[in-house]
Amino acid sequence: MSLLESIRGPRDLKALAADRLDELAGEIRQFLIKAVARTGGHLGPNLGVVELTIALHRVFDSPADRILWDTGHQSYVHKLLTGRQDFSKLRGKGGLSGYPSRAESEHDVIENSHASTVLGWADGLAKANQLRRRSDHVVAVIGDGALTGGMAWEALNNIAAAKDRPLIIVVNDNARSYAPTIGGLANHLAALRTTNEYEWLLSLGKDLLQRTPVVGKPLYESLHGAKKGFKDAFAPQGMFEDLGLKYLGPIDGHDIDAVESALRRAKRFNGPVLVHCLTVKGRGYAAAEQDEADRFHSVSAMDPLTCAPLTPSAGRSWTSVFGDAMAELGEERDDVVAITAAMLQPVGLAKFAERFPERVYDVGIAEQHAAVSAAGLATGGLHPVVAVYATFLNRAFDQVLMDVALHRCGVTFVLDRAGVTGPDGASHNGMWDMSILQVVPGLRIAAPRDAEQLCSQLREAVDVTDAPTVIRFPKASVGEPLPALDRIGGLDVLHRGQGQDVLLVSVGTMADTCLSAAALLRERGIGVTVVDPRWVKPVDPALAPLAAEHRLVAVVEDNGRAGGVGAAVAQALRDADTDVPVRDFGIPDQFLPHAKRSEVLADLGLTPAEIAGRIGATLSRIDARCAVGRGVTQKEEADGRR
Amino acid sequence: MSLLESIRGPRDLKALAADRLDELAGEIRQFLIKAVARTGGHLGPNLGVVELTIALHRVFDSPADRILWDTGHQSYVHKLLTGRQDFSKLRGKGGLSGYPSRAESEHDVIENSHASTVLGWADGLAKANQLRRRSDHVVAVIGDGALTGGMAWEALNNIAAAKDRPLIIVVNDNARSYAPTIGGLANHLAALRTTNEYEWLLSLGKDLLQRTPVVGKPLYESLHGAKKGFKDAFAPQGMFEDLGLKYLGPIDGHDIDAVESALRRAKRFNGPVLVHCLTVKGRGYAAAEQDEADRFHSVSAMDPLTCAPLTPSAGRSWTSVFGDAMAELGEERDDVVAITAAMLQPVGLAKFAERFPERVYDVGIAEQHAAVSAAGLATGGLHPVVAVYATFLNRAFDQVLMDVALHRCGVTFVLDRAGVTGPDGASHNGMWDMSILQVVPGLRIAAPRDAEQLCSQLREAVDVTDAPTVIRFPKASVGEPLPALDRIGGLDVLHRGQGQDVLLVSVGTMADTCLSAAALLRERGIGVTVVDPRWVKPVDPALAPLAAEHRLVAVVEDNGRAGGVGAAVAQALRDADTDVPVRDFGIPDQFLPHAKRSEVLADLGLTPAEIAGRIGATLSRIDARCAVGRGVTQKEEADGRR
Repeated sequence: MSLLESIRGPRDLKALAADRLDELAGEIRQFLIKAVARTGGHLGPNLGVVELTIALHRVFDSPADRILWDTGHQSYVHKLLTGRQDFSKLRGKGGLSGYPSRAESEHDVIENSHASTVLGWADGLAKANQLRRRSDHVVAVIGDGALTGGMAWEALNNIAAAKDRPLIIVVNDNARSYAPTIGGLANHLAALRTTNEYEWLLSLGKDLLQRTPVVGKPLYESLHGAKKGFKDAFAPQGMFEDLGLKYLGPIDGHDIDAVESALRRAKRFNGPVLVHCLTVKGRGYAAAEQDEADRFHSVSAMDPLTCAPLTPSAGRSWTSVFGDAMAELGEERDDVVAITAAMLQPVGLAKFAERFPERVYDVGIAEQHAAVSAAGLATGGLHPVVAVYATFLNRAFDQVLMDVALHRCGVTFVLDRAGVTGPDGASHNGMWDMSILQVVPGLRIAAPRDAEQLCSQLREAVDVTDAPTVIRFPKASVGEPLPALDRIGGLDVLHRGQGQDVLLVSVGTMADTCLSAAALLRERGIGVTVVDPRWVKPVDPALAPLAAEHRLVAVVEDNGRAGGVGAAVAQALRDADTDVPVRDFGIPDQFLPHAKRSEVLADLGLTPAEIAGRIGATLSRIDARCAVGRGVTQKEEADGRR
Repeated sequence: MSLLESIRGPRDLKALAADRLDELAGEIRQFLIKAVARTGGHLGPNLGVVELTIALHRVFDSPADRILWDTGHQSYVHKLLTGRQDFSKLRGKGGLSGYPSRAESEHDVIENSHASTVLGWADGLAKANQLRRRSDHVVAVIGDGALTGGMAWEALNNIAAAKDRPLIIVVNDNARSYAPTIGGLANHLAALRTTNEYEWLLSLGKDLLQRTPVVGKPLYESLHGAKKGFKDAFAPQGMFEDLGLKYLGPIDGHDIDAVESALRRAKRFNGPVLVHCLTVKGRGYAAAEQDEADRFHSVSAMDPLTCAPLTPSAGRSWTSVFGDAMAELGEERDDVVAITAAMLQPVGLAKFAERFPERVYDVGIAEQHAAVSAAGLATGGLHPVVAVYATFLNRAFDQVLMDVALHRCGVTFVLDRAGVTGPDGASHNGMWDMSILQVVPGLRIAAPRDAEQLCSQLREAVDVTDAPTVIRFPKASVGEPLPALDRIGGLDVLHRGQGQDVLLVSVGTMADTCLSAAALLRERGIGVTVVDPRWVKPVDPALAPLAAEHRLVAVVEDNGRAGGVGAAVAQALRDADTDVPVRDFGIPDQFLPHAKRSEVLADLGLTPAEIAGRIGATLSRIDARCAVGRGVTQKEEADGRR
C-alpha cells in the first residue's frame, strides 16, 4: 500500500510523521500526472498546490473548519486527501467532478467554478460563525489571478472591516491565471515577493529611529502613532495592511513546514489575516513547468511522457475558426480591438495578439471590466470584440445592458463554450446566454451553424456601430458546411420537405440534428421545412408569415428553454396574431451534471430521434383535436390523412 | 443677469475672473436648492461638488476632454455649466434627465446611473485615445462609496497597469454613499485624510535619513531603491501608490483654487493619477449638512426653508410595509439576517437595523458581495434577506445563479423599485428581474399584489431553506387590500365573470389594472376570470387546466415582455399541450424615458382601457378565424355569438 493509499481522510494525514510528508507529496504528484494524463483535466493548478493542501488539512479540521477553494479546479489534491482516490472517470459521466462537489463529500463547500467568489463565501461563513458563536475556522484559498476580479475586492473590503472576525485568506500566488497575471495588483504582489531587503531594513531602521528623538518622543513612536506606522511602511504588507488585513508572508508554498507554521500563526490570529504563499504552477512535472502558454492548466488525455494527445483531434474547433477570422479582420480593419478576461489562448485570440499586440487587452479575471471598458473603447471610436466563455458573460450582464446597450455602443461579444459544454459540469455550461440577452434592447444575437457562417456573421457583427452584437458557438468541432437552399427574409432555408406540416427552426449548431430529425419525419410522411434564422434576436419578421403556412412550429436550441429562442419565436408569433402551435426543444430549467457534451444532449432528448418522435406525437394530438373540433372522429381523421 | 446666467458653456466659465468663482458657486448653490426643492431630485450630492465641477470645467476642455461622472446623480452643476439651466421639469416628462444624457448635451458621456462604472469607461476611453494617438484628457469623477464596488477595483487594476496611459481619477470623498461608507477602504481613505503629520515627517525624515549612511549608501537611497520607497512610506499614497497610481491629495474639494491647482498637476502627469478631493455632502445647506441619515441625498418636492414636503404622501409605501414586516420577522426568528448594498434606509431596513444591529450587514455598493456572502451565511445556518433595488440585482445575476441557486441556498431577495420606476429614467426601471431570474433553476419569484400578500409571501419565502426566493414590488404606495374569492392550486382568483372567454393572469401590482380591464370587458359581454398566481415562477400547475377552459389567456405584467411571466405562462401551456391562444402585456424591448410611473405605464398601453381594447380585438380575430375554420362566415359567427 502506498503512503497515499493509506490516507483515507484528514485524520490519517494528521497522524503521519512530518518527515514522511515530502514522500506523500511526491506520490500525489505521480498520481496526478498519471491519472489526469489518462482522463484529461486540470493538471498544472493541482501540481502547484500539493504541499499547500497537505498543510491545510494538517492544520485545520475539515469539515468543521471550512476549507474553501476558489474556482475549484485545484481541488484534486483535496479530493485525494478526503477519501476520493478513484480518478478513473474524472469529469466523466458518473465519475468524480472536476471541481468540489457537495454530493461527493462533506469536505466540499463551493462548487461553482467561477473565479473570485471564495472570499465572499468566506465572509458569509465567518459572519455566520460569529453570530452563532462558533469558533470553527474559515479558510479561503484564492489565486493571484482571481484577486483581479471585482468580487474579491468587494469581499476584501468587507472582511477587513471587522477586525474581530477571524478569517484566513490563503493567496496561492503562482503569478498566473492561464497566462501570467497582469495589472497593478500583480505588480504589487511581485513587489511583495522580494521581501528580504525589507526584513533586514526593518530591524535596522527600527533600531536607528528608536534612538532618534523628535519633538520629545522617538521618531519611531511618532510614526507608529500615525495611521501608517513604521513597521507597515518597511515590511511588505503593502495594500493588504492598508485595507486592514494582517499580512503573513511571503511563504514558500512548496515548503510544507513553512506553510504549516504560517497557517498555525494565522489560526491563532483573532481577526482577518492573509497568508501569501508562493507556488509554481505545474510544479514537479518538467513539461508543465516549462510550458509558457499555460503550464498545462488543463490537458486532454495524453501520454504523460511525450505529452502527445491520446486521441487525435476530432477536427477543427470553433475557437480556431474564430481565431483565424479575427486575425484576418485585424488586417482589414485597424479599428477592431480584442478584449479577453485572462483567457487569451483559450478564447482563440493568440493569433490576433501576435499580429496586433497593441490592439489586444487582457483585463484580468474581470468580465465586468471587459464589457464596460469595451463601451469606453467603442465610444472612443474603436470596435471592440470581447471574447469570453458564454458562462462567464453572466458576470457582466449589467454592463452589457447598462453600459454597452443603453449607450448604443458597437461592441461584439463572442461567446465560446456556448450551450452544453459537458465535462466541466453545471457551472461551465453556457446555457443561459440566449435567454438573458433576449431582454437587452437593441442587442443582436447570432448563432452560426457552420464555419462559414461564423466568419460571415463576425463580419456582419463588427459592421454594427450602434448596438451590441453577440456571436455564440459551442465547445466542439465545426462540422461540414451546411449551405442554404434559399433565403426568406433573414432566414436560411436548409431543407424543404414535401408538404408544409412542420416549420423547424434550427438554432446554430443544432442544424445537423434538425436536418436529421426532418429526414426521420419524412419517413413518416410528415413534411418539414428547416430554417436557420442566423440572427436569433431579434426574431426575423419573415418568420411569422412562414409559420402561418405550417401546422406546427418547432424550435430547437442548445440553450435553456426559459426565455430562450423558442420563447422569443412563440412571442413573435403571438404578436403577429399567428396562433399556430409552437413547441420548443432545449435545456430544461435545471443544472446539468458533468458528462460528455453528446451524452448530456442525449439525456436531454436533444437528438434527431427524440425530437422527431415528439414532433410526430404532437402533430397527431393536434390533428386529433382539430378533427374533434370539425366534428370528425379521430379514426376518420387518421384514416384520411395523406 | 446673474453670474450663473452669463455662463452659457465652459468657455464662459474659463473667461470668468478667478475672484468671482466663489460668487458663482454661491449662486449655483442657491439655484440648486430652489430648483430641486421645487421638482425633487438629488440635492446633497450636487451641493457637494459645486467647486469641484467649476474647477473641472476650468482646467479641462469638454467635450474634447471627457469629464465622466460615476453614477451621474451629481451632474446637476455640470448641466448648469454646460448650457442647461432650465430645471423646471427636472426628471419629469420632456424635462431634463436627473443624470447625464447624451441626448441633452455633447458634454455628457455616461448615463447609466449604476455606480462604480466610471473607471472602466475611463480606461476604455484612455485606451482609445492612446491607440488613436489623441492627447485629449480623460477625467473620471468617482465617489468614495462607489470605490467599494468591484468594478472600480477591476478598473484600477487595469488603469494602474499602464504607466504611460494618461488618465485622471478624481475621488470625490465625502465619506458617504447614502450613509457613511464602511469597510476597509473607507478606513484607509480616513487615514489618508489626516495627512499633515506625514508631510511634516516627510521633510524631516528624508533629511535625517539622507545623513545616515548604511552599507555604503544613505539609508534614504537604500529605501528608495527598494520596491516601496521612503517617500511612499511616509506620504499618504497608501494603497493607490501600491497599485501603481500617482496620488495627489488630499485636497479641500471646496477650495476652487486648490482643486484647480491639483487638477493642473494631474493634467501634466503623463500617466494614471488619482486626485483625492474631500467634500461635504449637502455643503452650504444647513438642513442637508445636518441630516445624518443621508444628507438630503435625494429629496421630494419640498419647502426649501422648512423642508416640509409640498405634496402630502400618497399613502404607505411598499418599502415601509416590507420594513415593518422584516422587523417583526426579526423578533420571531433569530436566524433571519439582512443585507444591504449601501442603501439601508432606502430599502427599508432601518427598523430592522435598529432592533437587531448585529444581524444587518451593509456590504458597500457591492451587490455581488451581497449575494455571494448571503450564500455563505445561508450555508452557515442563517436565512439572509438581501434587500436591493430590482435594477441593481442585475449586477449579481451570476452570483444568484452560481452561488445561491446552484448551491440550493435559502436566501430571500427583496426587490424594491421593481417594474417601472419613472423619474430616474432608463437605468432605474426594475423591468428585467422577472425575465432573467426565470432561467435560475429552483428559484421562486413572488409578486405580491397588496400589503397583506407581501407580508405573507415574505414569510413563505424565509421558510424556503433549499432554494433562493425573490419578492418584488414597485416604487409606489400600496393600494387597498385585494382579497381573493377563491384559490385554485396556487392561484388566487380575484374575479369571475359571466362565461369563460378570457383568463386574465395578473402579476403583482397589475391586479388593479386587470380588475378594471375585466370590468370594461364585461361591459362588452366578454367573461373574464382574473387570477393572481402569487408565485410567478415556477408557473403553477393549476394554470394550464384553467387556461384550457377559456378561449384566450392574457398575462399582464410590469416587466419586460421578453422572457417574462407571459412568456413563461405561454411555455407552460405549450408544455401541457394546451394550445389556447395567449397574449402578453408588458414592457416592450426598449429603454424607457424618464417620466412619472403612471405616465410611463400609460405610454406603454398598460392601462385598463388599452388592455381591454386589445383583448377584445384579439378575441374578435380569433372568433373570425375559428368561424372560417368551421366553414361559417364571419357574419354568421358574429350574429350567432351569444
